Amino acid sequence: MRELGEFALIERINAGRVQTRAVLLGPGDDAALVAAPDGRFVVTTDMLVQGRHFRLDWSSPHDIGRKAIAQNAADVVAMGAVPTAFVVALGCPADTPVEVIDRLTDGMWAEAARAGGSIAGGDLVHSPEMVLSVTAFGDLRGRAPITRAGARVGDTVAVAGRLGWSAAGLAVLTAGVDPAGENFADALAAHRVPQPPYAAVLDALSDSAGGHDAGQGGHVAQPEDGVLGSHHPPPQSRGAAVFGSGVIGSAGHRTRTAPNALTDVSDGLLADLGHIAEASRVAIDLHSAALRDAALEAIARELDADAAQWILTGGEDHAFVATWPQERFLPAGWVPIGRVLAGHGVTVDGAPRPGAGGWESFTGADSASDAATG
Amino acid sequence: MRELGEFALIERINAGRVQTRAVLLGPGDDAALVAAPDGRFVVTTDMLVQGRHFRLDWSSPHDIGRKAIAQNAADVVAMGAVPTAFVVALGCPADTPVEVIDRLTDGMWAEAARAGGSIAGGDLVHSPEMVLSVTAFGDLRGRAPITRAGARVGDTVAVAGRLGWSAAGLAVLTAGVDPAGENFADALAAHRVPQPPYAAVLDALSDSAGGHDAGQGGHVAQPEDGVLGSHHPPPQSRGAAVFGSGVIGSAGHRTRTAPNALTDVSDGLLADLGHIAEASRVAIDLHSAALRDAALEAIARELDADAAQWILTGGEDHAFVATWPQERFLPAGWVPIGRVLAGHGVTVDGAPRPGAGGWESFTGADSASDAATG
Repeated sequence: MRELGEFALIERINAGRVQTRAVLLGPGDDAALVAAPDGRFVVTTDMLVQGRHFRLDWSSPHDIGRKAIAQNAADVVAMGAVPTAFVVALGCPADTPVEVIDRLTDGMWAEAARAGGSIAGGDLVHSPEMVLSVTAFGDLRGRAPITRAGARVGDTVAVAGRLGWSAAGLAVLTAGVDPAGENFADALAAHRVPQPPYAAVLDALSDSAGGHDAGQGGHVAQPEDGVLGSHHPPPQSRGAAVFGSGVIGSAGHRTRTAPNALTDVSDGLLADLGHIAEASRVAIDLHSAALRDAALEAIARELDADAAQWILTGGEDHAFVATWPQERFLPAGWVPIGRVLAGHGVTVDGAPRPGAGGWESFTGADSASDAATG
Repeated sequence: MRELGEFALIERINAGRVQTRAVLLGPGDDAALVAAPDGRFVVTTDMLVQGRHFRLDWSSPHDIGRKAIAQNAADVVAMGAVPTAFVVALGCPADTPVEVIDRLTDGMWAEAARAGGSIAGGDLVHSPEMVLSVTAFGDLRGRAPITRAGARVGDTVAVAGRLGWSAAGLAVLTAGVDPAGENFADALAAHRVPQPPYAAVLDALSDSAGGHDAGQGGHVAQPEDGVLGSHHPPPQSRGAAVFGSGVIGSAGHRTRTAPNALTDVSDGLLADLGHIAEASRVAIDLHSAALRDAALEAIARELDADAAQWILTGGEDHAFVATWPQERFLPAGWVPIGRVLAGHGVTVDGAPRPGAGGWESFTGADSASDAATG
């Protein structure tokens, strides 16, 4: 890396990359130019530090690149926006092999493509350890942003994506067991590369009132995009009787209502729902039966760990959790897990869960997470 | 910092801050929402690493915060865009005093205000040494971006802002002389906080064809007008006729022409003009007499150094350098320093300058710069 020099390395990183249409001017000048069709853009930034948020002996450079993009893209989607572009600042030790940079950026581009965007520019500097700082952009397509503050009493709390699997993977890596154990592969993969089910949110919104895509027909989540994973049992509380009937839109096609509140699970389910409860001035009660995951419980038994703790407080899976108007069908990929109530705080089966904090970067209360997550 | 925790610290950082109108939704949710009035936004990102780009014993936290914002805002302005907002990812050791974070963010907000924007959001994580990653946004106001590729043979090369002063300040700090020497104060200040002359660019542009500011009646490019704005002539059709005469706006007031090429001096004047020469497929010749700076030469004599070397290869001052159609008066704040010629490469008084490289992050060719600049 030192021999190649900054400019040659940047040229190498960008060689052959194809920008999406949203990137009007890509790398190579003082700044990039990105489209914001409705006159606004959603923006979020996350920094990942080697040894803190990833370890090079636990994750491949490709995995780390994907993870850095995925957690930012998840934040964009958690506002109800479609990812359009990313910029990346990368700090690396001078002796970093160029191949490591190649794979890291390949991973970034792969996940950017999965999210629907491309990497419009970046910065490359020396640093003692590897640091990735990703900024992600999204297009609301004329819709209002879906914040954490919109939850209403009576809403159904539902999740799209898996919970607790990243924490399980971290537990496998820290427990000193043989990580090649066959039940562990999914958990390790989930820890190394979160797979936010972008489509579960975006397909639901593309059909909702106010969306530009409403006229293009009913796209729904694909099977691989949104369920709680192949190992997740059918939630016991799911049923048409509970969640009412569908709505026929004025144009004659089926429309859905957008969620009232939406976030991604980055700090842990209880912590992230706590943010919604606080911002919306409501209480949230979760149904533990709806959260159970037989496959995760099998892994927990092998490690003498508590699957419920992983599910409730493990961050980094970047599932989406939302509160939906209760009279609607939930869109494809969404599983009901609780209810919005009057009051404050988050409870499980009506009771506060002691010591349930979720991840918070600086307190270091959770020493397992503290080792290599964020 | 460890005691306070991430969420409390973020709340503290954001307390009492007033966002500009461009920030439609500020910190506190999964992402921010920023206005992009003409349907596009300029974006750039830069990472600053402790020990590499700044030293806490040479610069105050307030200075470092200002510098991080300034160098990004300069990149936005170097595209011809008006800074609107910033997002900041900050990595800090756990034992960083909260007061250091306060002053760092105060410095960021101060420089953001000077540039015309506010800080719309960010991230805060642990890292072994301090790392700042700033992403800056700008509004072209319907104008075409001013790239490095537009220089035309015959253009006047002109600079706005100081050159070589940051390098002089670094030389003072590394030379072991008493930095309290009275001639050194300006150089030290220039090294600690670059002062890009944003207004020299933006005031010139606000009067030029295509700008929002040219008159309330002057409608600007809509997104559908095309990728780079409707005012940007296609490269092949660009010719003397476009720039041949003074332009009287339709409202009857005098307008100026925008520069054909523009960048900020971050890597060193020769290096940055080399980027323009290469991208524009032209040669650039500088007039050494126009670059002389008596005050800088006085400092150089005290340090037994070469002021011309600082001026030609010192980066980090974030002056602006542009090539202007030669028939024009230069706008206020711009000083002519050379001419665009047919050919390639950058010369001084017609001769190549040996060993003139400017700053490049990974080659480490310039050991003085390598210590604490970028």
